[in-house]
Amino acid sequence: MSKLTHTDSDGTAHMVDVSAKSETVREARAAGRISMNLDTLDAIKTNMMQKGDVLATARIAGIMAAKKTHDLIPLCHPLALSKVAVEFTFLDDGIAVESMARLTGKTGVEMEALTAASVALLTIYDMSKAMQKDMVISDIRLLSKTGGKSGDWSA
Amino acid sequence: MSKLTHTDSDGTAHMVDVSAKSETVREARAAGRISMNLDTLDAIKTNMMQKGDVLATARIAGIMAAKKTHDLIPLCHPLALSKVAVEFTFLDDGIAVESMARLTGKTGVEMEALTAASVALLTIYDMSKAMQKDMVISDIRLLSKTGGKSGDWSA
Amino acid sequence: MSKLTHTDSDGTAHMVDVSAKSETVREARAAGRISMNLDTLDAIKTNMMQKGDVLATARIAGIMAAKKTHDLIPLCHPLALSKVAVEFTFLDDGIAVESMARLTGKTGVEMEALTAASVALLTIYDMSKAMQKDMVISDIRLLSKTGGKSGDWSA
Amino acid sequence: MSKLTHTDSDGTAHMVDVSAKSETVREARAAGRISMNLDTLDAIKTNMMQKGDVLATARIAGIMAAKKTHDLIPLCHPLALSKVAVEFTFLDDGIAVESMARLTGKTGVEMEALTAASVALLTIYDMSKAMQKDMVISDIRLLSKTGGKSGDWSA
Amino acid sequence: MSKLTHTDSDGTAHMVDVSAKSETVREARAAGRISMNLDTLDAIKTNMMQKGDVLATARIAGIMAAKKTHDLIPLCHPLALSKVAVEFTFLDDGIAVESMARLTGKTGVEMEALTAASVALLTIYDMSKAMQKDMVISDIRLLSKTGGKSGDWSA
Amino acid sequence: MSKLTHTDSDGTAHMVDVSAKSETVREARAAGRISMNLDTLDAIKTNMMQKGDVLATARIAGIMAAKKTHDLIPLCHPLALSKVAVEFTFLDDGIAVESMARLTGKTGVEMEALTAASVALLTIYDMSKAMQKDMVISDIRLLSKTGGKSGDWSA
Repeated sequence: MSKLTHTDSDGTAHMVDVSAKSETVREARAAGRISMNLDTLDAIKTNMMQKGDVLATARIAGIMAAKKTHDLIPLCHPLALSKVAVEFTFLDDGIAVESMARLTGKTGVEMEALTAASVALLTIYDMSKAMQKDMVISDIRLLSKTGGKSGDWSA
Repeated sequence: MSKLTHTDSDGTAHMVDVSAKSETVREARAAGRISMNLDTLDAIKTNMMQKGDVLATARIAGIMAAKKTHDLIPLCHPLALSKVAVEFTFLDDGIAVESMARLTGKTGVEMEALTAASVALLTIYDMSKAMQKDMVISDIRLLSKTGGKSGDWSA
Repeated sequence: MSKLTHTDSDGTAHMVDVSAKSETVREARAAGRISMNLDTLDAIKTNMMQKGDVLATARIAGIMAAKKTHDLIPLCHPLALSKVAVEFTFLDDGIAVESMARLTGKTGVEMEALTAASVALLTIYDMSKAMQKDMVISDIRLLSKTGGKSGDWSA
Repeated sequence: MSKLTHTDSDGTAHMVDVSAKSETVREARAAGRISMNLDTLDAIKTNMMQKGDVLATARIAGIMAAKKTHDLIPLCHPLALSKVAVEFTFLDDGIAVESMARLTGKTGVEMEALTAASVALLTIYDMSKAMQKDMVISDIRLLSKTGGKSGDWSA
Repeated sequence: MSKLTHTDSDGTAHMVDVSAKSETVREARAAGRISMNLDTLDAIKTNMMQKGDVLATARIAGIMAAKKTHDLIPLCHPLALSKVAVEFTFLDDGIAVESMARLTGKTGVEMEALTAASVALLTIYDMSKAMQKDMVISDIRLLSKTGGKSGDWSA
Repeated sequence: MSKLTHTDSDGTAHMVDVSAKSETVREARAAGRISMNLDTLDAIKTNMMQKGDVLATARIAGIMAAKKTHDLIPLCHPLALSKVAVEFTFLDDGIAVESMARLTGKTGVEMEALTAASVALLTIYDMSKAMQKDMVISDIRLLSKTGGKSGDWSA
C-alpha cells in the first residue's frame, strides 16, 4: 500500500498477506464443552427435546459454520476446506465437542476448527434452552495444528 | 478424529476428506424443466410478465446459486468455480434448463450444476406465479460429469 | 421511480411493492420427490450412507434454505418467517418431501416452501450420489397457500 | 404438517412456530471471557498486535455475527434486530465480553446475544493467535432476558 | 449496557437502538453514474458485451445487494424491504443509475438505496472491464428520503 | 453447452471460463473518495460520531466486502484472496480511500479492490449520515492491476 497510513493509528486492521506461503496440508483440531443439568442431558440423550435431534443438528451447524468462518471473523482468509468434522461425547455434567478442519492451502485452519466447535455448542444451547437457560459454554480451545512454516503445535 | 464416535449412531454427517485428491479439470452438466400453461409460456416468451424479464433473471439466479452451493448443501466443499453457465430452451408445454459448472480442483461439481438448474427453475416459478400457481418443476438430473478419479459418467 | 424506463425494454426486473399489503398469517405448503434404486433407498433407510444420516441432514438443509430464499430468488422479499418444517416419507421407488412455511407478514411464502423442498431433495442427492448418480428430482410443486388478499389456493 | 412423521424418529428438527406470539420488546444480555498471558493482554491493550486493533475489530465482528444468527443456528428465526451492542472489559488474565440484543418481535434474542459474544471472542483469538495459541474461551452464558410470555429471567 | 465502556475509547461502534421508533412507510432514492468511452457505451447499448446483457445483470445485482445491505454495512439494521427498484438511463458519456428502496418499519432505507446504486454500477464495470479499465464511478448520493421522525429530505 | 442458445438473445450472461488460465500472483489497487462538510470531517477526525469509530468500522467493512465480491457481482468468480487492505487519507473536503487485493489464482482481483473501496465509502456515509445527508461518493476507479496474461495496467 502507499503511505496512506497516517490516519490509521487507532485501527489498521488488515488481512495478512499469505500469497508467498506454500500450499501444504494443514489441519487443526479444537474442542469445547457445554455444562448442563442431568435432566437436560437426559433429554438430549434420549432425543426428547421439543426442537428435535440436538446432536445431529449441532453437528451440521458446526460443519456449515466452519465454511462461513471467513464471513464471521473479519481478517480470516476464504479457504477451500477439504474436510470438516464435528464429534460429541457425553460428560457427566454436559457434552464435549471436538472439531477438526483440514485444507491444502496457504494458511492455517485454526479459526475454522474453533468456529465449528463454537457454533456446534451454541446450537446445543439453542435446541435445549426451553429446558434450561443457565447452561455454560466453556473450554473452547485449540488442541493441535499441523502443517505450515510455523510448524506443528499441540496443547 | 478421536474415538468420540459412540454418540454418533444417528447422524455422523461429515464432509468427506478430499485433501488427497488430485487437482484436475472437472465439469458437470445438469438439466431440469418446468411445465406451464400456454398462456404463461407466451407471457414469458413475449417478456410480458409483470415482474420483468423471466429468463434473464432466472439465468443470473442460477449462476449465483451455483456459487452458494456449499452454503446450501451441508456437506459440499467450498469451491473456486472456474465457469458456470445456464441455458434455456422453450418446450411445447414449458421451459427446459441446462446448466454446467467447471472447476480445476479436488472434488466434483455435480451439486453446483444441479443447484444452478434448480434455482433457475424456482426463479421462473417466482417470476410467473402471479399468472399460474400449479406449474411443476421436474426431471432435475445430472447429465454428465468428467474429470476426477472415478472417471467420466453420462446419463 | 422516475421516467428512466426507456432503457428497460429487455429486463425491467423489480421487486413488487408490498408496502400497502396488510399483515396477515400466511402459510404455504410444497412438495417434491426423488426417485432412486432400491439399493440406494435401503442404504438411506438403514442409515448406511458413508456421508451420514441423509434425512436429518436434508431436513436441516431445507429449513436453512427457506431462510435464504430472498438471497437465492432475486425478486423475493426478505421475510421474518415464523415457522418452517420439512418432512419425508418413503415411497416404493424413492423419497417424497413435504415442506411448509408460515409468516405473519405482507407477502406470501410460496417460494420459501418450494425452496425448502428443492434444497432438501438436492441434499438427499448429494448424500447419496456416491451410490447412484441417475437419481431424478421431480414433482416440485405448490400444494396450498393460505392468507393474503388473493385468497386461499390449493392444488 | 401431514402425518408424514413416521420417517422422523431420528431427527425431527423444525423451527418452532411463533406466529401466534405477540410482538413485544425483547432483550437479552450474554457474556463470556477469553484468558491469555500478560504479554498477549499487553499487546492488545497497547494496540501492538500485528493484525491491527483487536477490540474494535472484535466488536464489529460480534455485532455483524448477531445479524447472521439465523444463518448459523439452524432453527433460529430470522429477526429484525433493533439494537446490538458488544462491550469489553480488561481482566487480570484476559478480556471479558458482554453483549446485548434487542428486538420488537415475536421471539427472544438470547441466541443473538450469545452469538455476538462468541464471535467477538473468536475474533480476539484470531487477532492474537500469532502471539499465543493456548488462549481459552469460556463462561459463555446468558445473563438475562426480558420480554415475552415466558417472563423475565436473569442468571 | 453496563459500565464496561472504559476500554472503548477508540471504537465504540454499536447499532443504534430503533426499538422505540414507530413503524412508518419509509422510502429513499439514490443515484450515481459511471463514465466510459463511446465504444464501451455502444457495446452496452447494442448488447454486444462478451459477458452478456449488462443492464439486466446490473439491475438484478443492485436489487439483490439492497437485500444484503445489513450484511455489508456493519451497523445497518436488518430490514424487511417491501420494494427495491433500479433504473438506468444513457448519458452522452456513460450510464446513470437511480435506485429506490421502500419499507414499512422503524428505520430509514437510505443505505439500501445507496448500496443498490453502488453495486449496480460495480456490476456495469465488471461486465465491461474487458473493453475499458479506466471507467469511473461517481456522484453516488442520496436523492431523497421520506418517512420517519426526522422528516422528509431531498437533495 | 449445447445449442440451447436460441432463447438467449436478450441476456446470455455467463461466468467466463478461467479453467485454462494459469495461476499467477495477481494484485489490483483501487481508490475512491467521499466529500463532506468540515464539521462532518472534524467529527470523524476527532472520533465524535455517535455511531462510533468511523474509519475503523469502514476499514473492516471494506475488507469483509472484498471477500463477498462474488456474492455481490453476479459473474465474478469465487476467489481465495491472499490479502486485502483498505487505507484512508484525509482530504480538505473529505476522505480518500485506497484499497488493494491480492491473489494467487486464475483471475484478476479488480472487482475485489473496487468493492472494498465502495463498501468502505458507503460505511463512512452510514456512520456519518445523522450529521450530513448530502455527502457524495465519487472517483471510484481502478488504479492498477498486475499479473495475468493480459499484463499489467495502471491508470
